[in-house]
Amino acid sequence: MENKSYLIQSNGNGVHHGMLHVGKNGSVNPSDLKTRKPRWNIRPSEMSKNTLNPIRAIVDGMKLTPNPDKPMIALSIGDPTVFGNLPTDDNVLQAMKDAIDSHKYNGYAPSVGYLHSREAVAKFYSRPAAPLEGKAIELAISVLCNPGQNILVPCPGFSLYKTLAVSLGIQVKLYNLLPEKSWEIDLQHLESLIDEKTACLIVNNPSNPCGSVYTKEHLQHILLVASRHCIPILADEIYGDMVFPGCGFHSMAPLSTDVPILSCGGLAKRWLVPGWRMGWILIHDRNQAFGPEIREGLVKLSQRILGPCTIVQGALESILNSTPQEFYCNTVSFLKSNSEICYTALSTIPGLTPVKPSGAMYLMVGIEMEHFPEFQSDVDFTERLVTEQSVFCLPATAFEYPNFFRIVVTVPEHMMVEACSRIREFCNLHYRASSLETNYLDQ
Amino acid sequence: MENKSYLIQSNGNGVHHGMLHVGKNGSVNPSDLKTRKPRWNIRPSEMSKNTLNPIRAIVDGMKLTPNPDKPMIALSIGDPTVFGNLPTDDNVLQAMKDAIDSHKYNGYAPSVGYLHSREAVAKFYSRPAAPLEGKAIELAISVLCNPGQNILVPCPGFSLYKTLAVSLGIQVKLYNLLPEKSWEIDLQHLESLIDEKTACLIVNNPSNPCGSVYTKEHLQHILLVASRHCIPILADEIYGDMVFPGCGFHSMAPLSTDVPILSCGGLAKRWLVPGWRMGWILIHDRNQAFGPEIREGLVKLSQRILGPCTIVQGALESILNSTPQEFYCNTVSFLKSNSEICYTALSTIPGLTPVKPSGAMYLMVGIEMEHFPEFQSDVDFTERLVTEQSVFCLPATAFEYPNFFRIVVTVPEHMMVEACSRIREFCNLHYRASSLETNYLDQ
Repeated sequence: MENKSYLIQSNGNGVHHGMLHVGKNGSVNPSDLKTRKPRWNIRPSEMSKNTLNPIRAIVDGMKLTPNPDKPMIALSIGDPTVFGNLPTDDNVLQAMKDAIDSHKYNGYAPSVGYLHSREAVAKFYSRPAAPLEGKAIELAISVLCNPGQNILVPCPGFSLYKTLAVSLGIQVKLYNLLPEKSWEIDLQHLESLIDEKTACLIVNNPSNPCGSVYTKEHLQHILLVASRHCIPILADEIYGDMVFPGCGFHSMAPLSTDVPILSCGGLAKRWLVPGWRMGWILIHDRNQAFGPEIREGLVKLSQRILGPCTIVQGALESILNSTPQEFYCNTVSFLKSNSEICYTALSTIPGLTPVKPSGAMYLMVGIEMEHFPEFQSDVDFTERLVTEQSVFCLPATAFEYPNFFRIVVTVPEHMMVEACSRIREFCNLHYRASSLETNYLDQ
Repeated sequence: MENKSYLIQSNGNGVHHGMLHVGKNGSVNPSDLKTRKPRWNIRPSEMSKNTLNPIRAIVDGMKLTPNPDKPMIALSIGDPTVFGNLPTDDNVLQAMKDAIDSHKYNGYAPSVGYLHSREAVAKFYSRPAAPLEGKAIELAISVLCNPGQNILVPCPGFSLYKTLAVSLGIQVKLYNLLPEKSWEIDLQHLESLIDEKTACLIVNNPSNPCGSVYTKEHLQHILLVASRHCIPILADEIYGDMVFPGCGFHSMAPLSTDVPILSCGGLAKRWLVPGWRMGWILIHDRNQAFGPEIREGLVKLSQRILGPCTIVQGALESILNSTPQEFYCNTVSFLKSNSEICYTALSTIPGLTPVKPSGAMYLMVGIEMEHFPEFQSDVDFTERLVTEQSVFCLPATAFEYPNFFRIVVTVPEHMMVEACSRIREFCNLHYRASSLETNYLDQ
């Protein structure tokens, strides 16, 4: 019986387990098995261990015990459907039912999505469209970056970028946003981070968690940096067009003729149905910088996913074309009104520095920590806000931006008013005037 | 200006491009930029390049020109909805519309799926259930295997295993199925492939592409191999319970008390809605061999995906509980009847050796290549079958199993009869009696 031998191996924990190496003919001598029995040694993969969600890591570590005398108000969840005050449009729901009744959308769709659905997106955005699927950002990062490379990510910024990149072995470099400039990018800092391993620049506009909306001029400056260093842009525009009346939204792609851009969008936010998992990537190529290879790469990656639910795909054309303008207007009017209520109220609370938003559904609030000596951090502050006032805001440490917290402005107006009044009570109680009066705006 | 320097690099294609390394303060000297201009050098990631779909690679390379005098019959597509003769049950569609009308399923679901949906699956299968999502197999492979390890995969077998594993840097080892034993696993061959890097054994029962259904005894023998070498099993049971009247389906998990098993299932096949992208993983742990870590790994990986469409999740409980038994019975009766028509017809065609199926929706047909000297391969054979008879069957080279082709038996009965008659005409025309009479069963 040639080729048969024992391999005694360490599994790295100092535990030895036997591994039977059988001969080419596959036969096993039963007496071998007695000598050293293998053991179950099943460990989760490195990829799963490297999939870290910073928000969960922080929130799960917090002691969230609401005040039993006050009903809980969660200003933490970036899901506009939670309170039922922001339903999607009836036409959107009817489009889904029509797709079901047609019996046409139960089979497999092409992995990149139905052609007519992709064309509907292309037409809606008047740009050449490409693969449709439920996780556009992951696909875009995956196609552009290899392990060992790095991506430039906004700080504060949405934690999913980091979660995905780190699990893929891609390094994340955080570039600073400037609260004193309505969260514009610190372009010098951004440029200083670029090196030969930089594979892409993620720009999130309008921004989660900041609620900021960039001017055309600022977007042009960002494009200039990308152009200078030949770094493609991943434009996360999932909140595209969700800007307050009076502010304009500029998509990045039409502002450049030389920077190749993958623009990610979807139904989640603007149509208020985040659970439906329908997103898309618009490929804006420039002088074949992406070329056919990046398209092929996206198509291949889409085959790992096999596309989003076909019912939603079937409904997509009608959703894009039949949703009345009024629906979009009502949504942004509500968001503007609610964020103004919140901003105005918090502006007059000593120790807090809200930054005025222009879009999306968020507002960031600075905590002047020197005036709250009882609290070690924004995590501490928001934890106690739950304990005493039953109001939960996400500490911005979850966005790698300490001493701030994020408020979601999609809650019903009366809850927003009540929450602000409780935050005021909380701050009044804990605020301590310091001898050294400083404001982060003056630093 | 310290720390500033040029790095001139080769990108591996012999093309040099300049990369500006800026100082810590982020300032760039404009004259530097003139000296050596960076170029766009965007390449798709290794992961996307390593995502290969063998079926597409083969089918895209075929010249598929149907005979203009005969309407095309595709027996190649494993999608039961294509011809409209196998609609899903009305209760399933109603459950979807109810989920839409409830307005309860538009927001984010937990990344592992709604608790009540997971409980509905758990109850339906009377087993402890776990993460629900649209790509159960990928999640299961991803959590168990690291790059450099290997998985054992059936041959012939569904190509997605290989596509996913290779893109993750995991080696695929093919174990043989035996057509002369109704596609049972060659256990000696299976065992001979196991080494210290084997991370899991994939068992697909009922089988795509074979249509085979394993006996309880055979499954017990497979479990014995897994137990002996402590290899966890990924049981792909997406065709579970889709077995012909008279044949019994045995899920693997209840047959073992010591082998840890991840069992993958979903709505796709049994409920005839493959496009809805709803799958699940049932975690069958044994003596904590998976332990909390594999569960945590699955939860983490589910956070990359954020779960399937919430509307389908909302409908799931009702789909599982309200679909009448009659619907399942009608489906398998149809599949049995159609596969018998096909098997009986092809059995009498000289040069073909169909293998009788017992479930799923497929049938494999051996081509006695020595009797068809005009054709180089199964790819060649099936290509000409399209050109002459407008019947398309998938060459089994797509399943790494040459000299066979796969027939999908979900087409309407009259098309199945017509297709078999055209296959007969084709074989009669091209069959050549050989002097050396051999049959693969006698090899």
